[in-house]
This record gives sequence, structure tokens and C-alpha cells, in this order.
Amino acid sequence: MSDAVDVPFLDAAHGRSGRHTPVWFMRQAGRSLPEYKSVRGEGSILHAIKQPDVAAEITLQPVRRYGVDAAVLYSDIVVPPHAVGFGIDVAPGTGPVADVPFRSRADLDRLRPLEVDDVSYVVDTVKLLAAELPADVPLLAFAGAPFTVGSYLIEGRPSKDYRYTKAMMYDDESLFNDVMDRLATSAITFISAQLSAGARAFQLFDSWTGSLSKRDYEHFVKPHSTRVFAELHERHPDAAYIHFGIGCDHLLESMYDAMPADGRRVLGLDWRTPIDEARSRLGDDLVVQGNLDPALVLAGESAAVRGAEQVLADNRRADGSQHPGHIFNLGHGVNQHSDPGVLQAVVDLVHERTS
Amino acid sequence: MSDAVDVPFLDAAHGRSGRHTPVWFMRQAGRSLPEYKSVRGEGSILHAIKQPDVAAEITLQPVRRYGVDAAVLYSDIVVPPHAVGFGIDVAPGTGPVADVPFRSRADLDRLRPLEVDDVSYVVDTVKLLAAELPADVPLLAFAGAPFTVGSYLIEGRPSKDYRYTKAMMYDDESLFNDVMDRLATSAITFISAQLSAGARAFQLFDSWTGSLSKRDYEHFVKPHSTRVFAELHERHPDAAYIHFGIGCDHLLESMYDAMPADGRRVLGLDWRTPIDEARSRLGDDLVVQGNLDPALVLAGESAAVRGAEQVLADNRRADGSQHPGHIFNLGHGVNQHSDPGVLQAVVDLVHERTS
Repeated sequence: MSDAVDVPFLDAAHGRSGRHTPVWFMRQAGRSLPEYKSVRGEGSILHAIKQPDVAAEITLQPVRRYGVDAAVLYSDIVVPPHAVGFGIDVAPGTGPVADVPFRSRADLDRLRPLEVDDVSYVVDTVKLLAAELPADVPLLAFAGAPFTVGSYLIEGRPSKDYRYTKAMMYDDESLFNDVMDRLATSAITFISAQLSAGARAFQLFDSWTGSLSKRDYEHFVKPHSTRVFAELHERHPDAAYIHFGIGCDHLLESMYDAMPADGRRVLGLDWRTPIDEARSRLGDDLVVQGNLDPALVLAGESAAVRGAEQVLADNRRADGSQHPGHIFNLGHGVNQHSDPGVLQAVVDLVHERTS
Repeated sequence: MSDAVDVPFLDAAHGRSGRHTPVWFMRQAGRSLPEYKSVRGEGSILHAIKQPDVAAEITLQPVRRYGVDAAVLYSDIVVPPHAVGFGIDVAPGTGPVADVPFRSRADLDRLRPLEVDDVSYVVDTVKLLAAELPADVPLLAFAGAPFTVGSYLIEGRPSKDYRYTKAMMYDDESLFNDVMDRLATSAITFISAQLSAGARAFQLFDSWTGSLSKRDYEHFVKPHSTRVFAELHERHPDAAYIHFGIGCDHLLESMYDAMPADGRRVLGLDWRTPIDEARSRLGDDLVVQGNLDPALVLAGESAAVRGAEQVLADNRRADGSQHPGHIFNLGHGVNQHSDPGVLQAVVDLVHERTS
């Protein structure tokens, strides 16, 4: 694909100055938008994801409404295990719930490696979107990282303590590694299929890995996430990639290091780590994504705008200009009770202040 | 009180070598113990706290069972606002729930400063315990820090995003400061009453302040928590104190700095920050409390023992000896589904390995 068209998202991912600081929001498509509710029927999100025309329309809605600089595929991190028949669904109001949690070696039989044909509907959705999206709005693929997906399979549902996951890590490391290895392979297949079909960047969500100490992250998790990035970088050397987790301030160096240094690597920040502090730790060339606290969006326009102004201030260089390596986002997904008008005010503010 | 008796907890708090590394567990008294269930009737925990004989018995149970090196008063962080008639209770299975959340200046009328007479039952419980506890097992007082207590009052119930609290911080800083100021004063009164009645150390729980960035913590929260420690240190210069929060790795320097440097200050660590890393950041003389992951206790004895051994290894000095400034604890409260036998194995391990 040509870069003849000015693409703010890719400019920022490359750390070069562009038209303006690009903006997109994690979970920008979905329940916070009234037009989503009118397209979506009842039933599981996994059912909607299987209908390419519906999934493409939902993906496009926030691009049309907000004028954001990237589209993010309407999908879910449990699509790969669901697609291979593990027996997992997304319960409205709860999150991923497994019919039977993964607790012993025999459960590996339910977790065969993903094949592209298992998710042909996702490939079809990506193709529709690649044809429809404006040339300056790239499509982002995403997948859950092995630890975060694995924690859902092993716990069987959203957890506060990850007790079964940590029990397996400590008591049966060999099985834990086998689970992580299969999930890493599936994430590679899943993202690669989307990049081949027209997505131009991807984000690996390791949302819950912040529950681990740095030692445990380095030992049990990082090797698997590193493999995901390395293999995808080899297959798709032009794709930009983002690594993101919640409450991962103590893991930032490790998570950054999991991405190939010779690629277009972007570190996703939640709202706890100011951009300038991340650069002081990881180098002035660091390309970051983030990091307005989504609670400030819930709090209303005045708090959200003040918070967004602070994020832009944190990204300012000594000479007063904006650092080019910044993709504006929230520090976590859009809460479903967010007011779209507040998000619009944030998009407009960022574009106006940086163009 | 004389230090003629060897008191492992106080030795460690002073950073001097003692009989062994002291152990206690946050939430060691309560629902994880069968003997607790037989003493406690139905109804709110706040009702049980108001009966000094019951509260003292519950406080003593884990001391008898485990042989831990400190007793922690059976109490709750919402006792002070409950005692002044704010209208808050602890709902079983949910946590603190306010009848009417704190949302506007008029709500200050429901939050008058605590007086000692409001919590005379707590003073009575402390006096019973001071008379009954072995001389080498000090009683610990505790209170919620202004931010954490305030978040319950403002949200009205346990929250994932602290949206109303953050909205008040950003949109009405003056009101937010008034709330924090009253809660700081109440925490001082509450803890001071317990220290005067016989408690010998205290812990300030700022469990949820890790939801804030360091900038917001420094600006909105730290001044109030600093005042709590400073005034208590002035009134009770011999008392040791512990500052603790969950997911606060990014705030450790600030939280440590909130405690007077000329006192017996102890930094509570959750399981994310290894002890040796905390000392590399804050100085080799740092006295720490922690930090076995409570999920490993849930996971079972083998995982818990491996985790405890790692904590002891993290506290080892270059010459192979244990650093004297370590109070062994979990990195969060005991989960109610924990097996007391696993906790006993941890206590025994720590005592055996360090005596």
C-alpha cells in the first residue's frame, strides 16, 4: 500500500510529523453509540462478529461520527478460542465465560491451533473495510495476548485474583507454557490473516498482565508475547504494532522490550504513566499511545477536556512543539456509559491543538 | 510500654535484628477462619465491631491459631463515617454501600468530624486486647486513608473507575479538598484513640489510590495523607506506621515520602514490587512489609510456600542474611476462601527460615 496519502496514524507510528496528532479510542465501536444499538440485535457479540456486513458497519460508525484517524476492527479477544471450539462466549454484562474452564492437560484437546478458515468471516470483514475506509484512515487489527486470553480460559470468567492461572504457573509450568504457546500461535494466525486482508497495524491487548510482578511477567509471559511480535514482524515488516495493558506501569520496560526494536513499535500507556515519564524511562524517541483516563470522559466534558489538555502537555517537547510520536487514545477502552459528545469534544480538541 | 520484652514486629519496624522475621496477615481475622463463623452471628460487620468482647475475641483468634507476631484490630475503614452518621454500611458480598452518595457541598453536613466518644466501643476493644495480648504481640490500629474512604462515600459503593471521585477532583477541587480534609481529621482521631488505648503501631490503608496517576496522587491526595502521618507522629512519636495500597508501584516514592522521615516508617508492598527492587529505588535501609501474592495462598500450599520462599529471597542481603527491616505479610488481604492450613504453613516457614 502506498504512503502517497498523508496518514496521520502511520506518521505518528513512524515517529514523524504529520497533519495532526492522530486520535482513536479503544472500544470506540460498540455500546456507547446509539447507532450501534440500532444495528445490533440481541444475542452474543460473537454472533454479530460473524456477520461481515454488520461487523464492518459497526467498525465504520465511529469513523464517520468522530472523524477519528483509525478504525479498529469490531471483534473480541476470545474470537480465536471460540472459533476452534473451546466453548467460550461473551456474556452481556459479565464478559468472557467458558462452558468448562481450562484446568488440566486434557483440556488442550479443546484448544487446537487456529486456522485461517476458522475465522474466514473476520477476513471477509477486513476486506470490506479495506475497500470502504478512506485512504488516510487505516484499519487496526487486534488480538488478546496469550496471558490475558489464557486467564479467561483458565479462570473460566473475569477474575479479580487470577488464582487458577497463577496456580498453574507455579504448580505446572509445563502445562502453562503449552497453553501460552498455543494461544501465541493462534494470535499470530489471527492477526496475520487480518494484516494480509488489508489491516495496516495491530494492537496486542495484554489487559490483565499487570496483575503479575515483573519477575513473573518476564519469566512466564514475556517469551510468548515476544514470539507473537517477532513472527508478525517477520511476516508483515511494514505493519505498525502497539502493546498495551492496564496497570502495567511496573512492566513498561519489559512490554516495550517484547516488541522488535527494528519495527514500528508503539507502547500503549494507561492513564497512570504520564507520557513524559515514559519517555524519560524508555528514551526520547519512544512512540506512545494514550492516555486520557476514561473516567474523565464519564465525568463530563469539562473534566475530559482538562484531562486531554494535560495529555497534550505531557507530549510537548522542550521547545513547546508536540512530539511527533504520539497516538492519542484513552488509557483504557471507552466505557459503555460514555457520552459520545464528550468523545467528540476530545477528538476536536486534539485535532485543533495539533494541526 | 517497655521494650524489655523482645517484640519481633517492633524490632523489624525499627530495622533492627530480632528473634525472627515477624509475620501477620492483612485481614487475618475474619471469614477465612471457622472459629470466626462460630462467634459471629448474622448481620453487618459494623454491628460486630460495636461489641468489644466479640471484636476482641475475633482479633485474638488468628493470634492463637497461627502464632502471628501482631494482632490487627477487627475493624473496618468505614467505621468513622458510619459513626458520625453519614449513612454507610458494609453489605455482605459487596462491600461499603452508602445510603446516599456524597455528591455536593450540602453532603458535608453528614460528615462532621469524628469525636472519640463516637467510637468508644473501639477504644474499649483496644483496652481489652492490650490487657490480653502476649507482651511480644503488639496490637495494630488501622484506618482508611482519605482517598480510599472518600471514594466509597463519593461513589456510594465499590467502583472500578472512580468516576464520581475523579469528576469531583477535576471539577470541584475545593469541595474535594474539604472532603479529604474532614476524612484526614477523622483518621487522625480514630487512630490516635487506638494508640492512646494501647495499640502500638498503625497502618493507613490507601487501597484504591493506585487508580490515580502520580501527578494526581501528588496533587490531590498526598497532602492529606501526609497530614495524617505527621499529626499522628507528633502525638505518638513511639508508634510505628505502615502505608499501604494496591497496585501502587508507580506511587511508592510518593507514598513513602508521605511518612515522616524521623519516624518508624514502613512501606507496605503489594506483590507486584519485589522487596529488593523497592530497596533499590528507596534506599537500602527501607523497612518494608509484604508481599506474598494472596492468589498463591488460594492456589494451595505448594504455590504459597514457593512464593513465600521467593519473598524471603528478595529480602536477602548480599552476604546471604535476611535484611532486618522486613515484616512478612501478604501483598493484599487474606481472601475469605483461603485455607487456614496454607497460611499456617507460611507462618511456620517464615519463622523457621529466619530464626
